[in-house]
Amino acid sequence: KPMFDPKEHQHLRYNPLRDSWVLVSAHRMKRPWKGQLEKPPEDNIPRHDPNNPLCPGSVRANGEVNPDYDGTFMFENDFPALQPDAPDPGSDHHPLFQSKAARGICKVMCFHPWSDITLPLMKPAEIRRVIDRWADLIVELGDAHAWVQIFENKGAAMGCSNPHPHCQVWASNFLPNEPALAERCQRDFMQKRGEPMLVQYARMEAQAQERVVVENEHWLVVVPYWATWPFQTLLLPRRHVLRLPDLTAQERDSLASIMKRLLTKYDNLFEVSFPYSMGWHGAPTGSYLKEDMSHWQLHAHYYPPLLRSATIRKFMVGYEMLANEQRDLTPEQAAEQLRNLREEHYKVEKT
Amino acid sequence: KPMFDPKEHQHLRYNPLRDSWVLVSAHRMKRPWKGQLEKPPEDNIPRHDPNNPLCPGSVRANGEVNPDYDGTFMFENDFPALQPDAPDPGSDHHPLFQSKAARGICKVMCFHPWSDITLPLMKPAEIRRVIDRWADLIVELGDAHAWVQIFENKGAAMGCSNPHPHCQVWASNFLPNEPALAERCQRDFMQKRGEPMLVQYARMEAQAQERVVVENEHWLVVVPYWATWPFQTLLLPRRHVLRLPDLTAQERDSLASIMKRLLTKYDNLFEVSFPYSMGWHGAPTGSYLKEDMSHWQLHAHYYPPLLRSATIRKFMVGYEMLANEQRDLTPEQAAEQLRNLREEHYKVEKT
Ligand SMILES: O=P(O)(O)O[C@H]1O[C@H](CO)[C@@H](O)[C@H](O)[C@H]1O
Ligand SMILES: O=P(O)(O)O[C@H]1O[C@H](CO)[C@@H](O)[C@H](O)[C@H]1O
Repeated sequence: KPMFDPKEHQHLRYNPLRDSWVLVSAHRMKRPWKGQLEKPPEDNIPRHDPNNPLCPGSVRANGEVNPDYDGTFMFENDFPALQPDAPDPGSDHHPLFQSKAARGICKVMCFHPWSDITLPLMKPAEIRRVIDRWADLIVELGDAHAWVQIFENKGAAMGCSNPHPHCQVWASNFLPNEPALAERCQRDFMQKRGEPMLVQYARMEAQAQERVVVENEHWLVVVPYWATWPFQTLLLPRRHVLRLPDLTAQERDSLASIMKRLLTKYDNLFEVSFPYSMGWHGAPTGSYLKEDMSHWQLHAHYYPPLLRSATIRKFMVGYEMLANEQRDLTPEQAAEQLRNLREEHYKVEKT
Repeated sequence: KPMFDPKEHQHLRYNPLRDSWVLVSAHRMKRPWKGQLEKPPEDNIPRHDPNNPLCPGSVRANGEVNPDYDGTFMFENDFPALQPDAPDPGSDHHPLFQSKAARGICKVMCFHPWSDITLPLMKPAEIRRVIDRWADLIVELGDAHAWVQIFENKGAAMGCSNPHPHCQVWASNFLPNEPALAERCQRDFMQKRGEPMLVQYARMEAQAQERVVVENEHWLVVVPYWATWPFQTLLLPRRHVLRLPDLTAQERDSLASIMKRLLTKYDNLFEVSFPYSMGWHGAPTGSYLKEDMSHWQLHAHYYPPLLRSATIRKFMVGYEMLANEQRDLTPEQAAEQLRNLREEHYKVEKT
């Protein structure tokens, strides 16, 4: 019998943050692709478009006029999925027809006044400003909400409907499914092992190096052992940190730097503005602020869909939706590819 | 305070098959869409293309020549994610780096010799033949595999790379994540309530009618109370049935008929060949065949991505990936729309 080789032999890997498994079938990369091709992202976005509701000076859907902002700019989502005052659906439901109240608030934050720039092309000081605003948001909304989800959908392939660089924050009075799972898994691990899961994990990955993409004094980016998306990464502080506002000034500068390096590599991979959804997971807030949440470790997830080129994505469909997530290259192969890429942005190099 | 109205007020609904919640924010449908448009499916697929490896008489990737089949045709996937003989990754792993062996088999089944036909346009007797082959597959592969996942990815939007009507089956020596969850949820419900969850659910939905799309003597199709995808449906037998091979001849004919009606409505919704991923969940097989699995009820899930038109889909991205699934219309609204559609296929009407 041949020796086990993760690149040749399918196997399952365990995701300890989601208590589930991913099927790794790296030999699938050999299959030809005759399916749908993504449209590569537009390359000639105007720097300023007066009809784009995210630009400085534009009129938004609710009639408000944006200020002539020159850093970040935040406003309430004009079509929020969560509103502060929805009435309660009432209790006493049959177990098969259960509902409960959902209340919250949705905001949008522009990263920069220009529409034709993205985070990897911004200056470190500009990225640092975004990080500071993220931390402020957790303080501001965390008081009244159990969960404050900061996320960025980047690129039309990830359902982003506006090319202007921006993220969203949806804060809710409840703990959503994913953080509830991460809460349970991290709590169990801490109880069993006496150390926060992701603190131990970062240390072990830093030592092994095999899945590390970029690192610096304060931060580490890895393709996690259990990654689902082809080039998924996990951004982790080396120190035990519960929430974004706990980061020191130095750690924030260092975060700006590592984000720029990671996102530059992402863009360089297929020489295209790399689409992804990303978001922050820190310890829950609201009433959890008063509890011991030391089993949590702050982290960010990056979920990019592209698989083989700027136009060939991974589809999480049939088998993945109905049975089990499956990936077509090993996390180690993905990490190696990303690690070997240059840290100068292909657009900057070329000019 | 206003009365609770599910169409106006966001709320959470509980999915008892997945033990998780979905955020229903129906007022979000009002938001304008300026994001990515899907390419509508091609409309002039040649009936026979000698270069298409799924057509009768074609040569496949491994050099084999397809027979000149005139009904269904099955062969082993030339790029299988699961192979029968992968070596074991070994045991004794650190809790953060756990892997285990995955073994199985992947097959492809063509529904019909023509590339320009789909299930809703096939004759009931032809659909019946597909159903019989599905049942045979469970018998054939169920012996040696704990889970036999039959699924169809339809349309380029759902990662399907070949327009020829076909489905796949991936059988594995392990219970994948999704069936493992369905197993746990159905078992718990049965223990607490003394009746299989989905048998009770079908009875209650048949009585309420509000979420029913189509029904006949043996089958019921509903937009489940906890649906995630805009026009997601759940196909359920009225009788308690564990697995596809247990269906009587009459139930199979009746299934062919209700599938044709459902899929015709799907195509009529936006007058386009409706993309979806679908698949069957029945009681696990392999060593489970000897156990009491009476908490299971056979069912099929349909997960279609389109939201508003042939070109505007729902993106399950940022918030959905990182926090919680969210939908933009109520399941009751979706069911009503589907229910009110004609049962003659728009392509047949027009000729
Ligand atoms: O096997 P196919 O049709 O080439 O591939 C398609 O279905 C598979 C199973 O759902 C997915 O893993 C692939 O991402 C998708 O493109
Ligand atoms: O709010 P947006 O950017 O219009 O919408 C996008 O992000 C949301 C949150 O992930 C998703 O629910 C939508 O499907 C997606 O199109």
